[in-house]
Amino acid sequence: MERPFTFINSAMSADGKISSIQRRQISVSGREDLSRVAELRASSDAIMVGVGTILADDPGLGVKSTDLRRARIRAGKAENPIRVVADSLARTPPDAKVLGAGCILAVSRAAPEDRLEQLEGMADLVVFGDSRVDLGALMANLRSRGVRRLMVEGGATLNWSLIEAGLVDEIYIYTGPIIIGGESAPTLVDGLGFAFNFPELDLVALERLGDGALLKWRMKRP
Amino acid sequence: MERPFTFINSAMSADGKISSIQRRQISVSGREDLSRVAELRASSDAIMVGVGTILADDPGLGVKSTDLRRARIRAGKAENPIRVVADSLARTPPDAKVLGAGCILAVSRAAPEDRLEQLEGMADLVVFGDSRVDLGALMANLRSRGVRRLMVEGGATLNWSLIEAGLVDEIYIYTGPIIIGGESAPTLVDGLGFAFNFPELDLVALERLGDGALLKWRMKRP
Repeated sequence: MERPFTFINSAMSADGKISSIQRRQISVSGREDLSRVAELRASSDAIMVGVGTILADDPGLGVKSTDLRRARIRAGKAENPIRVVADSLARTPPDAKVLGAGCILAVSRAAPEDRLEQLEGMADLVVFGDSRVDLGALMANLRSRGVRRLMVEGGATLNWSLIEAGLVDEIYIYTGPIIIGGESAPTLVDGLGFAFNFPELDLVALERLGDGALLKWRMKRP
Repeated sequence: MERPFTFINSAMSADGKISSIQRRQISVSGREDLSRVAELRASSDAIMVGVGTILADDPGLGVKSTDLRRARIRAGKAENPIRVVADSLARTPPDAKVLGAGCILAVSRAAPEDRLEQLEGMADLVVFGDSRVDLGALMANLRSRGVRRLMVEGGATLNWSLIEAGLVDEIYIYTGPIIIGGESAPTLVDGLGFAFNFPELDLVALERLGDGALLKWRMKRP
């Protein structure tokens, strides 16, 4: 089944946290990393997040820079990449910034009918999987819509589900110069965790970026 | 109060985990990192771990290489660095490899009398703090014993307590080429976590090492 080239991009603290125990978004990235992420978004056909990220941060997922949006238009693309939310139970609030034209809301067959009715017309609703979104089927669907390059912006649970399903090609991690700590603070990859057969990576790039470090990993194929 | 120069050294997976959800030690480091750690140990006056690490991994904390031990002796030092265990409730098992001559077991006044009796003669028992080991007092005591360079080898809870108390100078992190994942898998710094005033770091070195990356951070003084 064909799927897009898929990469996870995330900032984490030096101790591997993507937010604090209160799930409050922490400014880990500096200016240099923020502009790298802006360009990465603008270079992608679609941006995907899990519903946890919508509930915690309410991101718009658009390309903020006018220059980058214009460059996309000049290249014959839509002004903004498609926005995709993996949301098994349709918990996205109707006033979430991510909703609107160009948003695909992927739910499972377990999503309550009244939630779906509330969200109707606010996104392109697609249903894959019984109790949880079948991410492989969603990926194939995105590919059939012309998505060749998919950027995943977390959170920890979606990252886990995608890696566990073998649907990730690369992982880009900016490690910032702070300690967040906390046994229950979200990390780059949460979920159940692997007990054996840990997925292996190749380090394809390593560079200093602003006050932190950028590590680019490629997933080894099993 | 004078204390030793104190650094944390740890290996973690690309997603910031120091072991799996089963608390099983995972081989994250390659050959190059293991020999770096061996030299780091041999260059230290004392090695400290928390009791959680003793219970999970039962490390001996000695210098394994004959060459490195001989080099220490030639330099007028003891064959092995002092081994220090922070163990508020004296939970170290009497058959733990860390015990014996050259081991300091730091407990609090809450440690049960029968546990202390069991461990008597197996380590140099010191008592600091009421319910938890007073790490600042322990550090001052180590300094008064001639410890100038203290290496901390985890785990996540001791790392947290030391950082929270402002007792750490540098943090060396080897990031290895695997994903471990897991919401409950131990990370570099667990404990309660910071909610604000996140400790800030300076990235003092960044290099590729074997199949992973070595990041050296210096704690900024508040």
